[in-house]
Amino acid sequence: MAKKTSLPLSKVYALIEPGPVVLVTTTSGARTNIMTMSWHMMIDFEPPLIACVISDRGFTFRVLKKTKECVINIPTVDLAKQVVACGNISGRKADKFTKFGLTANAASCVQAPLIEECFANLECRVTDTKLTAKYNIFIVEVVKAWIDRSKKEPHTIHHQGYGKFVIDGETIKLPSKMR
Amino acid sequence: MAKKTSLPLSKVYALIEPGPVVLVTTTSGARTNIMTMSWHMMIDFEPPLIACVISDRGFTFRVLKKTKECVINIPTVDLAKQVVACGNISGRKADKFTKFGLTANAASCVQAPLIEECFANLECRVTDTKLTAKYNIFIVEVVKAWIDRSKKEPHTIHHQGYGKFVIDGETIKLPSKMR
Repeated sequence: MAKKTSLPLSKVYALIEPGPVVLVTTTSGARTNIMTMSWHMMIDFEPPLIACVISDRGFTFRVLKKTKECVINIPTVDLAKQVVACGNISGRKADKFTKFGLTANAASCVQAPLIEECFANLECRVTDTKLTAKYNIFIVEVVKAWIDRSKKEPHTIHHQGYGKFVIDGETIKLPSKMR
Repeated sequence: MAKKTSLPLSKVYALIEPGPVVLVTTTSGARTNIMTMSWHMMIDFEPPLIACVISDRGFTFRVLKKTKECVINIPTVDLAKQVVACGNISGRKADKFTKFGLTANAASCVQAPLIEECFANLECRVTDTKLTAKYNIFIVEVVKAWIDRSKKEPHTIHHQGYGKFVIDGETIKLPSKMR
Protein backbone atom coordinates (compact mmCIF):
# COMPACT_ATOMS: atom_id res chain seq x y z
CA MET A 1 0.00 0.00 0.00
CA ALA A 2 3.04 2.26 -0.18
CA LYS A 3 1.70 4.17 -3.17
CA LYS A 4 -1.79 4.84 -1.84
CA THR A 5 -2.79 7.87 0.15
CA SER A 6 -5.98 8.92 1.87
CA LEU A 7 -8.69 10.46 -0.33
CA PRO A 8 -11.03 13.01 1.30
CA LEU A 9 -14.50 11.50 1.64
CA SER A 10 -15.98 14.53 -0.15
CA LYS A 11 -14.25 13.36 -3.35
CA VAL A 12 -15.49 9.78 -3.36
CA TYR A 13 -18.58 10.51 -5.47
CA ALA A 14 -16.43 11.47 -8.46
CA LEU A 15 -15.11 7.89 -8.59
CA ILE A 16 -18.50 6.15 -8.38
CA GLU A 17 -20.75 8.56 -10.27
CA PRO A 18 -19.24 7.68 -13.71
CA GLY A 19 -20.44 4.08 -13.23
CA PRO A 20 -17.29 1.93 -13.42
CA VAL A 21 -17.32 -1.80 -12.79
CA VAL A 22 -16.02 -2.40 -9.26
CA LEU A 23 -14.78 -5.33 -7.20
CA VAL A 24 -16.41 -5.81 -3.79
CA THR A 25 -14.36 -7.59 -1.14
CA THR A 26 -15.81 -9.16 1.98
CA THR A 27 -14.54 -11.52 4.63
CA SER A 28 -16.29 -13.96 6.90
CA GLY A 29 -13.06 -14.46 8.83
CA ALA A 30 -12.57 -17.97 7.49
CA ARG A 31 -12.98 -16.92 3.87
CA THR A 32 -12.32 -13.75 1.92
CA ASN A 33 -14.14 -13.10 -1.33
CA ILE A 34 -14.16 -10.79 -4.37
CA MET A 35 -17.39 -10.02 -6.27
CA THR A 36 -17.71 -8.11 -9.54
CA MET A 37 -20.40 -5.41 -9.31
CA SER A 38 -21.92 -3.06 -11.89
CA TRP A 39 -25.25 -2.17 -10.30
CA HIS A 40 -24.42 0.62 -7.87
CA MET A 41 -24.98 4.37 -7.54
CA MET A 42 -24.17 7.32 -5.31
CA ILE A 43 -26.99 8.47 -3.07
CA ASP A 44 -25.26 11.18 -1.05
CA PHE A 45 -22.06 13.24 -1.22
CA GLU A 46 -20.93 13.39 2.40
CA PRO A 47 -20.79 11.17 4.18
CA PRO A 48 -20.64 9.28 0.88
CA LEU A 49 -23.52 6.82 0.65
CA ILE A 50 -23.64 4.20 -2.08
CA ALA A 51 -26.49 1.86 -3.00
CA CYS A 52 -25.34 -1.58 -4.18
CA VAL A 53 -27.29 -4.46 -5.73
CA ILE A 54 -25.79 -7.79 -4.61
CA SER A 55 -27.28 -11.08 -5.77
CA ASP A 56 -28.84 -13.10 -2.96
CA ARG A 57 -27.52 -16.28 -4.58
CA GLY A 58 -23.88 -15.36 -3.91
CA PHE A 59 -21.39 -15.68 -1.08
CA THR A 60 -21.02 -11.89 -0.74
CA PHE A 61 -24.71 -11.38 0.05
CA ARG A 62 -24.60 -13.67 3.09
CA VAL A 63 -21.32 -12.31 4.42
CA LEU A 64 -22.32 -8.67 3.92
CA LYS A 65 -25.60 -9.25 5.72
CA LYS A 66 -23.73 -10.74 8.65
CA THR A 67 -20.58 -8.60 8.91
CA LYS A 68 -22.03 -5.36 7.49
CA GLU A 69 -18.61 -4.49 6.08
CA CYS A 70 -17.03 -4.48 2.63
CA VAL A 71 -14.49 -2.69 0.46
CA ILE A 72 -15.39 -1.31 -2.97
CA ASN A 73 -12.23 -1.57 -5.10
CA ILE A 74 -12.04 0.25 -8.43
CA PRO A 75 -10.05 -1.50 -11.15
CA THR A 76 -8.61 -0.05 -14.35
CA VAL A 77 -8.72 -1.74 -17.75
CA ASP A 78 -5.51 -3.71 -17.16
CA LEU A 79 -7.50 -5.79 -14.64
CA ALA A 80 -10.36 -6.59 -17.06
CA LYS A 81 -9.53 -10.31 -17.14
CA GLN A 82 -9.65 -10.54 -13.37
CA VAL A 83 -12.90 -8.54 -13.29
CA VAL A 84 -14.56 -11.08 -15.60
CA ALA A 85 -12.97 -14.04 -13.83
CA CYS A 86 -14.27 -12.83 -10.43
CA GLY A 87 -17.75 -12.51 -11.93
CA ASN A 88 -17.71 -16.01 -13.38
CA ILE A 89 -16.96 -18.09 -10.31
CA SER A 90 -18.46 -18.39 -6.84
CA GLY A 91 -16.52 -17.44 -3.73
CA ARG A 92 -17.65 -20.75 -2.31
CA LYS A 93 -15.55 -22.58 -4.87
CA ALA A 94 -12.28 -20.67 -4.96
CA ASP A 95 -9.98 -18.25 -3.19
CA LYS A 96 -10.06 -15.59 -5.89
CA PHE A 97 -7.03 -13.68 -4.57
CA THR A 98 -4.79 -16.71 -5.06
CA LYS A 99 -6.49 -17.93 -8.21
CA PHE A 100 -6.35 -14.60 -10.04
CA GLY A 101 -3.08 -13.22 -8.68
CA LEU A 102 -4.52 -10.35 -6.67
CA THR A 103 -3.07 -9.00 -3.42
CA ALA A 104 -5.09 -8.50 -0.23
CA ASN A 105 -3.96 -5.64 2.00
CA ALA A 106 -5.34 -4.81 5.43
CA ALA A 107 -7.94 -2.03 5.56
CA SER A 108 -7.93 0.50 8.37
CA CYS A 109 -11.59 0.57 9.48
CA VAL A 110 -13.08 -2.74 8.28
CA GLN A 111 -12.08 -6.40 8.25
CA ALA A 112 -12.55 -6.85 4.49
CA PRO A 113 -9.31 -6.41 2.52
CA LEU A 114 -8.19 -3.80 0.01
CA ILE A 115 -7.17 -5.09 -3.43
CA GLU A 116 -3.71 -3.63 -3.97
CA GLU A 117 -3.91 -3.76 -7.77
CA CYS A 118 -6.98 -1.47 -7.86
CA PHE A 119 -6.18 2.26 -8.07
CA ALA A 120 -8.83 3.20 -5.47
CA ASN A 121 -10.34 1.44 -2.46
CA LEU A 122 -13.39 2.51 -0.47
CA GLU A 123 -13.85 0.99 3.00
CA CYS A 124 -17.60 0.69 3.64
CA ARG A 125 -20.10 -0.14 6.36
CA VAL A 126 -23.68 -1.17 5.67
CA THR A 127 -26.07 1.45 7.06
CA ASP A 128 -29.45 0.41 5.67
CA THR A 129 -30.90 -2.96 4.66
CA LYS A 130 -34.55 -1.90 4.28
CA LEU A 131 -34.54 -2.80 0.57
CA THR A 132 -32.37 -5.88 0.87
CA ALA A 133 -35.16 -8.45 1.07
CA LYS A 134 -37.10 -6.99 -1.86
CA TYR A 135 -34.37 -5.80 -4.27
CA ASN A 136 -31.02 -7.10 -2.90
CA ILE A 137 -30.05 -3.46 -2.28
CA PHE A 138 -27.56 -2.63 0.47
CA ILE A 139 -26.87 0.98 1.37
CA VAL A 140 -23.28 1.47 2.50
CA GLU A 141 -21.37 4.43 3.90
CA VAL A 142 -17.77 4.98 2.84
CA VAL A 143 -15.80 5.44 6.06
CA LYS A 144 -12.29 5.61 4.58
CA ALA A 145 -11.01 6.04 1.04
CA TRP A 146 -7.61 5.36 -0.55
CA ILE A 147 -6.20 6.35 -3.92
CA ASP A 148 -3.03 5.80 -5.93
CA ARG A 149 -2.20 9.34 -7.02
CA SER A 150 0.56 8.14 -9.34
CA LYS A 151 -2.15 7.04 -11.80
CA LYS A 152 -3.02 10.35 -13.39
CA GLU A 153 -5.78 9.24 -15.73
CA PRO A 154 -7.03 5.85 -14.59
CA HIS A 155 -9.04 4.23 -17.38
CA THR A 156 -11.92 2.40 -15.75
CA ILE A 157 -14.29 0.07 -17.57
CA HIS A 158 -18.08 0.01 -17.86
CA HIS A 159 -20.02 -3.21 -18.47
CA GLN A 160 -22.40 -3.33 -21.44
CA GLY A 161 -23.41 -6.96 -20.90
CA TYR A 162 -21.99 -10.42 -21.64
CA GLY A 163 -18.34 -9.49 -21.06
CA LYS A 164 -18.40 -6.43 -23.33
CA PHE A 165 -16.84 -3.39 -21.70
CA VAL A 166 -16.36 0.17 -22.83
CA ILE A 167 -13.09 1.75 -21.69
CA ASP A 168 -12.85 5.38 -20.56
CA GLY A 169 -11.64 7.47 -23.49
CA GLU A 170 -11.09 11.22 -23.73
CA THR A 171 -12.31 13.63 -21.09
CA ILE A 172 -14.00 16.96 -21.70
CA LYS A 173 -14.64 19.82 -19.30
CA LEU A 174 -17.55 22.21 -19.63
CA PRO A 175 -18.35 25.22 -17.44
CA SER A 176 -20.88 23.92 -14.91
CA LYS A 177 -22.59 24.77 -11.66
CA MET A 178 -23.14 21.04 -11.01
CA ARG A 179 -21.01 19.43 -8.33
CA MET B 1 -39.07 9.55 -34.41
CA ALA B 2 -38.75 8.03 -37.89
CA LYS B 3 -35.35 6.54 -37.11
CA LYS B 4 -36.20 4.95 -33.77
CA THR B 5 -37.47 1.44 -33.31
CA SER B 6 -38.64 -0.55 -30.34
CA LEU B 7 -35.93 -2.09 -28.13
CA PRO B 8 -36.82 -5.33 -26.30
CA LEU B 9 -37.13 -4.64 -22.57
CA SER B 10 -34.66 -7.46 -21.87
CA LYS B 11 -31.90 -5.33 -23.47
CA VAL B 12 -32.49 -2.13 -21.51
CA TYR B 13 -29.99 -2.99 -18.74
CA ALA B 14 -27.09 -2.86 -21.20
CA LEU B 15 -27.78 0.85 -21.75
CA ILE B 16 -28.02 1.81 -18.07
CA GLU B 17 -25.48 -0.53 -16.46
CA PRO B 18 -22.44 1.32 -17.94
CA GLY B 19 -23.48 4.45 -15.99
CA PRO B 20 -24.01 7.16 -18.63
CA VAL B 21 -25.36 10.59 -17.80
CA VAL B 22 -29.04 10.67 -18.76
CA LEU B 23 -31.74 13.28 -19.24
CA VAL B 24 -35.01 12.71 -17.38
CA THR B 25 -38.13 14.26 -18.86
CA THR B 26 -41.36 14.81 -16.94
CA THR B 27 -44.52 16.78 -17.55
CA SER B 28 -47.04 18.31 -15.20
CA GLY B 29 -49.31 19.00 -18.16
CA ALA B 30 -48.77 22.75 -17.98
CA ARG B 31 -44.97 22.43 -17.99
CA THR B 32 -42.51 19.93 -19.39
CA ASN B 33 -39.04 19.62 -17.94
CA ILE B 34 -35.62 18.04 -18.54
CA MET B 35 -33.32 17.07 -15.66
CA THR B 36 -29.73 15.85 -15.92
CA MET B 37 -29.16 12.70 -13.84
CA SER B 38 -26.05 10.69 -12.98
CA TRP B 39 -27.13 8.86 -9.84
CA HIS B 40 -29.04 5.84 -11.10
CA MET B 41 -28.58 2.07 -11.33
CA MET B 42 -30.26 -1.08 -12.62
CA ILE B 43 -31.95 -3.19 -9.99
CA ASP B 44 -33.56 -5.88 -12.14
CA PHE B 45 -33.28 -7.19 -15.70
CA GLU B 46 -36.90 -7.87 -16.67
CA PRO B 47 -39.08 -6.08 -16.25
CA PRO B 48 -36.24 -3.55 -16.17
CA LEU B 49 -36.23 -1.72 -12.85
CA ILE B 50 -34.05 1.34 -12.31
CA ALA B 51 -33.35 3.23 -9.09
CA CYS B 52 -32.97 7.00 -9.55
CA VAL B 53 -31.84 9.70 -7.13
CA ILE B 54 -33.71 12.93 -7.83
CA SER B 55 -33.09 16.05 -5.75
CA ASP B 56 -36.07 17.09 -3.66
CA ARG B 57 -35.22 20.73 -4.38
CA GLY B 58 -36.04 20.42 -8.07
CA PHE B 59 -39.09 20.62 -10.27
CA THR B 60 -38.73 16.99 -11.43
CA PHE B 61 -39.06 15.62 -7.89
CA ARG B 62 -42.48 17.19 -7.36
CA VAL B 63 -43.82 16.25 -10.77
CA LEU B 64 -42.53 12.68 -10.59
CA LYS B 65 -44.10 12.21 -7.18
CA LYS B 66 -47.43 13.39 -8.52
CA THR B 67 -47.56 11.92 -12.04
CA LYS B 68 -45.41 8.82 -11.40
CA GLU B 69 -44.18 8.94 -14.99
CA CYS B 70 -40.96 9.96 -16.72
CA VAL B 71 -38.73 9.20 -19.68
CA ILE B 72 -35.04 8.41 -19.27
CA ASN B 73 -33.31 9.73 -22.40
CA ILE B 74 -29.72 8.73 -23.15
CA PRO B 75 -27.59 11.37 -24.86
CA THR B 76 -24.31 10.93 -26.74
CA VAL B 77 -21.31 13.23 -26.46
CA ASP B 78 -22.57 15.62 -29.15
CA LEU B 79 -25.25 16.70 -26.63
CA ALA B 80 -22.76 17.41 -23.80
CA LYS B 81 -23.49 21.15 -23.83
CA GLN B 82 -27.21 20.57 -23.47
CA VAL B 83 -26.59 18.01 -20.71
CA VAL B 84 -24.68 20.60 -18.68
CA ALA B 85 -27.15 23.37 -19.51
CA CYS B 86 -30.10 21.25 -18.32
CA GLY B 87 -28.24 20.57 -15.06
CA ASN B 88 -27.51 24.23 -14.45
CA ILE B 89 -30.97 25.74 -14.59
CA SER B 90 -34.27 25.00 -12.87
CA GLY B 91 -37.32 23.82 -14.80
CA ARG B 92 -39.25 26.47 -12.92
CA LYS B 93 -37.28 29.16 -14.72
CA ALA B 94 -37.14 27.99 -18.33
CA ASP B 95 -38.62 25.75 -21.00
CA LYS B 96 -35.45 23.76 -21.62
CA PHE B 97 -36.65 22.24 -24.90
CA THR B 98 -36.99 25.68 -26.48
CA LYS B 99 -33.99 27.19 -24.73
CA PHE B 100 -31.56 24.40 -25.66
CA GLY B 101 -32.94 23.43 -29.07
CA LEU B 102 -34.20 19.98 -28.17
CA THR B 103 -37.25 18.30 -29.70
CA ALA B 104 -40.06 16.74 -27.66
CA ASN B 105 -41.78 13.75 -29.25
CA ALA B 106 -44.83 11.98 -27.89
CA ALA B 107 -44.19 8.79 -25.94
CA SER B 108 -46.44 5.77 -26.34
CA CYS B 109 -47.18 4.77 -22.73
CA VAL B 110 -46.49 7.89 -20.63
CA GLN B 111 -47.29 11.59 -20.84
CA ALA B 112 -43.65 12.72 -20.48
CA PRO B 113 -41.96 13.35 -23.85
CA LEU B 114 -39.09 11.58 -25.61
CA ILE B 115 -36.10 13.75 -26.51
CA GLU B 116 -35.61 13.14 -30.23
CA GLU B 117 -31.90 14.02 -30.21
CA CYS B 118 -31.07 11.25 -27.69
CA PHE B 119 -30.21 7.86 -29.25
CA ALA B 120 -32.32 5.91 -26.75
CA ASN B 121 -35.47 6.67 -24.74
CA LEU B 122 -36.92 4.64 -21.89
CA GLU B 123 -40.54 5.27 -20.94
CA CYS B 124 -40.89 4.69 -17.20
CA ARG B 125 -43.49 4.42 -14.44
CA VAL B 126 -42.66 4.87 -10.75
CA THR B 127 -43.29 1.60 -8.91
CA ASP B 128 -41.82 2.22 -5.46
CA THR B 129 -41.37 5.38 -3.37
CA LYS B 130 -40.43 3.73 -0.06
CA LEU B 131 -36.99 5.38 -0.07
CA THR B 132 -38.08 8.70 -1.54
CA ALA B 133 -38.52 10.56 1.73
CA LYS B 134 -35.20 9.40 3.18
CA TYR B 135 -32.87 9.30 0.14
CA ASN B 136 -34.77 10.91 -2.78
CA ILE B 137 -34.76 7.48 -4.46
CA PHE B 138 -37.52 6.59 -6.94
CA ILE B 139 -37.75 3.08 -8.32
CA VAL B 140 -39.10 3.07 -11.87
CA GLU B 141 -40.07 0.32 -14.28
CA VAL B 142 -39.26 0.71 -17.96
CA VAL B 143 -42.50 -0.02 -19.82
CA LYS B 144 -41.35 0.82 -23.36
CA ALA B 145 -37.91 1.40 -24.88
CA TRP B 146 -36.81 3.05 -28.13
CA ILE B 147 -33.46 3.08 -29.88
CA ASP B 148 -31.91 4.66 -32.97
CA ARG B 149 -30.24 1.65 -34.59
CA SER B 150 -28.47 3.82 -37.15
CA LYS B 151 -26.04 4.86 -34.39
CA LYS B 152 -23.75 1.85 -34.32
CA GLU B 153 -21.42 2.87 -31.52
CA PRO B 154 -23.07 5.62 -29.53
CA HIS B 155 -20.48 7.37 -27.37
CA THR B 156 -22.16 8.22 -24.08
CA ILE B 157 -20.61 10.40 -21.38
CA HIS B 158 -19.98 9.78 -17.68
CA HIS B 159 -19.83 12.60 -15.14
CA GLN B 160 -16.73 12.88 -12.95
CA GLY B 161 -17.86 16.05 -11.18
CA TYR B 162 -17.94 19.80 -11.88
CA GLY B 163 -18.69 19.49 -15.60
CA LYS B 164 -15.86 17.01 -16.30
CA PHE B 165 -17.02 14.07 -18.39
CA VAL B 166 -15.26 10.99 -19.66
CA ILE B 167 -16.37 9.88 -23.12
CA ASP B 168 -16.79 6.22 -24.07
CA GLY B 169 -13.63 5.05 -25.83
CA GLU B 170 -12.72 1.62 -27.16
CA THR B 171 -14.73 -1.48 -26.33
CA ILE B 172 -13.33 -4.88 -25.42
CA LYS B 173 -15.06 -8.26 -25.27
CA LEU B 174 -13.99 -11.04 -22.94
CA PRO B 175 -15.48 -14.53 -22.68
CA SER B 176 -17.95 -14.30 -19.81
CA LYS B 177 -20.79 -16.13 -18.13
CA MET B 178 -22.10 -12.81 -16.77
CA ARG B 179 -25.24 -11.45 -18.39
